[in-house]
Amino acid sequence: MAKCKVVFQPSGRRGEFEEGTTLLEAAKSLGIPLESLCGGEGWCGKCKVIIEKGMENLTPMGSAEAKLLTDREIAANYRLACRAAIKGDVVASVPEVSVAAVQVVRKPLLELPVELNPAVKKYYVELPPPSLEDPTGDVERLLASLEAAHGLKNLKVDYEVLKSLPETLREGEWKVTVTVWDGKEIVKVEPGKVEDVYGVAIDIGTTTMVGFLINLKTGRIVSHYSMMNPQVPLGEDVMSRITHAILKEDGLEQLHERVIRGVNFIISKLVEAAEIKPEDVCEVVLVGNTCMHHLFLKLYPEYLGKSPFTPVVHDAVNVKARDLKLQVLASGNVHFLPIEAGFVGADNVGVLIATEPWKKEHVQLIIDIGTNGEIVVGNREKLFSASCATGPAFEGAHIKYGMRAAPGAIEDLKIDPETFEVTYETIGGEKPRGICGSGIIKAIAEMFKAGIILPSGKINVELSTRRVRETSEGSEFVLVWRDETAIGEDITVTQKDVRAIQLAKAALYCGAKILMKHFGAEKVDEVVLAGAFGTYIDKEAAMVIGMFPDCDLNKVVSVGNAAGEGARLALLSKEKREEARRIARTIKYIELSIDPDFQREFMEAMVFPHMKDSFPHIQHLLPKTSKEGFK
Amino acid sequence: MAKCKVVFQPSGRRGEFEEGTTLLEAAKSLGIPLESLCGGEGWCGKCKVIIEKGMENLTPMGSAEAKLLTDREIAANYRLACRAAIKGDVVASVPEVSVAAVQVVRKPLLELPVELNPAVKKYYVELPPPSLEDPTGDVERLLASLEAAHGLKNLKVDYEVLKSLPETLREGEWKVTVTVWDGKEIVKVEPGKVEDVYGVAIDIGTTTMVGFLINLKTGRIVSHYSMMNPQVPLGEDVMSRITHAILKEDGLEQLHERVIRGVNFIISKLVEAAEIKPEDVCEVVLVGNTCMHHLFLKLYPEYLGKSPFTPVVHDAVNVKARDLKLQVLASGNVHFLPIEAGFVGADNVGVLIATEPWKKEHVQLIIDIGTNGEIVVGNREKLFSASCATGPAFEGAHIKYGMRAAPGAIEDLKIDPETFEVTYETIGGEKPRGICGSGIIKAIAEMFKAGIILPSGKINVELSTRRVRETSEGSEFVLVWRDETAIGEDITVTQKDVRAIQLAKAALYCGAKILMKHFGAEKVDEVVLAGAFGTYIDKEAAMVIGMFPDCDLNKVVSVGNAAGEGARLALLSKEKREEARRIARTIKYIELSIDPDFQREFMEAMVFPHMKDSFPHIQHLLPKTSKEGFK
Repeated sequence: MAKCKVVFQPSGRRGEFEEGTTLLEAAKSLGIPLESLCGGEGWCGKCKVIIEKGMENLTPMGSAEAKLLTDREIAANYRLACRAAIKGDVVASVPEVSVAAVQVVRKPLLELPVELNPAVKKYYVELPPPSLEDPTGDVERLLASLEAAHGLKNLKVDYEVLKSLPETLREGEWKVTVTVWDGKEIVKVEPGKVEDVYGVAIDIGTTTMVGFLINLKTGRIVSHYSMMNPQVPLGEDVMSRITHAILKEDGLEQLHERVIRGVNFIISKLVEAAEIKPEDVCEVVLVGNTCMHHLFLKLYPEYLGKSPFTPVVHDAVNVKARDLKLQVLASGNVHFLPIEAGFVGADNVGVLIATEPWKKEHVQLIIDIGTNGEIVVGNREKLFSASCATGPAFEGAHIKYGMRAAPGAIEDLKIDPETFEVTYETIGGEKPRGICGSGIIKAIAEMFKAGIILPSGKINVELSTRRVRETSEGSEFVLVWRDETAIGEDITVTQKDVRAIQLAKAALYCGAKILMKHFGAEKVDEVVLAGAFGTYIDKEAAMVIGMFPDCDLNKVVSVGNAAGEGARLALLSKEKREEARRIARTIKYIELSIDPDFQREFMEAMVFPHMKDSFPHIQHLLPKTSKEGFK
Repeated sequence: MAKCKVVFQPSGRRGEFEEGTTLLEAAKSLGIPLESLCGGEGWCGKCKVIIEKGMENLTPMGSAEAKLLTDREIAANYRLACRAAIKGDVVASVPEVSVAAVQVVRKPLLELPVELNPAVKKYYVELPPPSLEDPTGDVERLLASLEAAHGLKNLKVDYEVLKSLPETLREGEWKVTVTVWDGKEIVKVEPGKVEDVYGVAIDIGTTTMVGFLINLKTGRIVSHYSMMNPQVPLGEDVMSRITHAILKEDGLEQLHERVIRGVNFIISKLVEAAEIKPEDVCEVVLVGNTCMHHLFLKLYPEYLGKSPFTPVVHDAVNVKARDLKLQVLASGNVHFLPIEAGFVGADNVGVLIATEPWKKEHVQLIIDIGTNGEIVVGNREKLFSASCATGPAFEGAHIKYGMRAAPGAIEDLKIDPETFEVTYETIGGEKPRGICGSGIIKAIAEMFKAGIILPSGKINVELSTRRVRETSEGSEFVLVWRDETAIGEDITVTQKDVRAIQLAKAALYCGAKILMKHFGAEKVDEVVLAGAFGTYIDKEAAMVIGMFPDCDLNKVVSVGNAAGEGARLALLSKEKREEARRIARTIKYIELSIDPDFQREFMEAMVFPHMKDSFPHIQHLLPKTSKEGFK
């Protein structure tokens, strides 16, 4: 087949490729860091390139691709690299906006200490070889030796193990390592002595999925990997996915297949990084909200989405990896943590077994911030949980210049209340390319403090500064002028961005207030922020915009991805799994939308920081207009 | 597409068919009973037709087809109907030999009484519908109701059930019937009240497979179906199949896939006859020899076939139907009875739980006659088992005019010792078409009694009768002259036929003698003949040829397909399964081939009825030459 030359600018890297290769594949093989969140599937729209020469040598643009490009981009010869396959020579230029930012490597999980008692354990055993005097079968021979050497009794043997057993025993010359699940079932037999046991913990978020490969002998994370949930193109939030599952023929099948594909992709990356085989992964533990839980397990989610919001199953689910087509040990167990109720799912159970509020005397408000926000209020006496429809704004989605926490993302800033001048910091100190999740909270808080945003959320267009301006799409505030950015455009915060944050923070605040009412608390003693985003948030800024009720700022703590940490703990400890089952059964779930105070609480919480509640701990930071605007 | 006319003679039935239709398909759709043992797969060679017109309108003959036809048949325009697809008009004539004989419907199993305690049971339950006050999930709601109504606790829920549960509960308006396996796991939930529970018992023979659909509420057989084992073309006996599995790439895969296909075909016929759905079959219990057991479960059989002859597993195996791709309830259990050792497999365990020799005072010899013969000697004190390589001769295979027990099969006969004239009876009183298994034993015994066969097994060609003659393939005895038969040929017993029976009976006799030696018995008190063939055998004739040691003829009993009966009992009773596990562990297996007396015993048993042993109970029937020939 003819080879085609491809040159990428500005690096000038070039190579020859088979006809049919996509520009994304070509870029990857030349080591060019082209952004791609969806893994080349054509839906994230991030791998834009400008075709300098040879547009006629590319497969034509389809309608799906055209939708992800603006008219201006199409006119300027933009293409999505993953959609454009070569038929001849091409010169393409990679715009700055498409350069893949290396996600900042931050500590992926707290790695809380836990007494190691994983469900999967390995046992080394030596068998007497069979003879005409003792021609006992392979299984019985193995079981007898396991009982003699390790006291293991009444073990079942998984069917997949049965099929490979005769060859394994003889390859190992009757010396083998046996992997036992839950003290009950042999799930793997390997020739010789094998020490390490691996498991994978996965947190399936509505928007982002993250996986951790964990060595079950040491409890340590060996590798981790995150990616967008491949279900995103079929619906951005849980309700739209439920709708997709119900209304589309094969809708559930599609959603299920995508999340399984995503999890398999993560696992492939985890084992690749650790240089182990997929079948070395002997168990997978998952957390996720109830909708993610149902879609992953291919459970029909219709009744989750309508009153009285009943899930298919609350208790922890154990399924063979092969029944889910997960590409790990076929006999391996897949354990999904239990769910509570409504949309408060296994992710919140994960947060709870990581934070253990039932051991505390003081009242905690635990907030897990993701596309769906789950909150818990309580202490050792009782615990209440609820789900808040925050939407993905806190993650930087639906924010015009929102981006991942990657080099060039504005993560901190200050606005001078007199001059409205902005000083900012970006991740890696690079030229700004956008605003990450924690940056947008800070920006809104600073704009509010400086009077650029009114308590109602409206941008004050009457301010005398060039930075506040009106466009055809509404008013906006310029954070960074074009000549300072890496993208050749002004980076702004728009009125739409403010509204998105306002809705999200109101949902959280309103949920907290209703749970506090149920618990009988006027105030909370501690606020625990979970979720990767919660780790980097500026607590003061979060309180200034009214994300949660007033509290001593020293008592606002971040615990990182506690849901993922919970999955890790459940992977490492059978006791933690039991704790998870117990808490999922006993926590009291509150359906916010049917609470008589819901409408009022939500409306009041729309105001920055709140229509009525006072914030003694940060009162000094609030603008004087704060209370007056609505009185 | 063009339609082609096909006419079948002599019936004159005709029809128009799409191009590409095979003559077998055309015959079936016209209701013409064309024989086909292999289901149209091109290996049984039974669906011969003679092309009267239009040979050029058929797909050409391949080498596989040509091998199954004689040169004479090819010259006479014979084709196999399943291999010949039409491209134009054809007139075909169906020779008498190809007319499908309706297998005589005989009582398929003894249907021994048993206390019904099947592993699968159904429970009807009514659930309170969920409400906003009680939004508990579907699984927990179901489990709570099952515990309240039936005291069932700690039930697991199969993953397949989980997936369909929400729809089923709502379709049944919260009234459902739950199928529970082994008191432990929910394997099915159906809307409304369902009373009947079904299971399938299958006996996988080396040559023949038979299945029984059983109503687990009544214990009765609802339908039964038998067919050739589709593995036959890959090897006629167990050793040749093991060789195939070891030496051919994908050999095990091929053999496994064929037996699964066969079992699925049987199940499809069973449920069709009973007018139920495949998923109404909630459990499948199987018996078969160790090789069939391994191939069905896809266990590598290499070490079974070589010293020290170790199987992969002795104990009963439980596997989900979906893991074996059996087309019954996906969550349903597949239970293969335990095996003893060597080739004495689950079929013999089935025979034992049906006959219960451990309850007897007197010494029994139990013979299960199939392609592989298994024998047991013992009583309540101890039991010994062994496997005898009888080959398929007793089933009429490798016998020149051997056929199934179908109309036209000679099943009984007498030979006048003076005139050598033969009087015979056929099944259904039809013109003879061949000799069935019981007929060939009778024929050999009568020939021996009349001096046509000498004790050495040689046909006495010096007899002055036209019926004994020499051909290019050896000597033979004419049972029925051509003008009396339905096939237009003489029906004969050849020297090769006699040798095949001689080897088979010697293998059985020799095995019985060695087990008697181990037990310490000079003689046995009772002979139990198991196997479908054992039911129709003439006991006297069997003893005359020396199939087993001397015994009071009144103490020779037939118990039919006791292996299949054992599968039925295990399907109906958990206690019988436990009995099976216990006996499989405790019976003492004897490897005949390594016994020091094996060669001598075998050689002595080759003689009719035996070289040395006396037969006081039938001495009066034996020819005077009997003892003299070897003294």
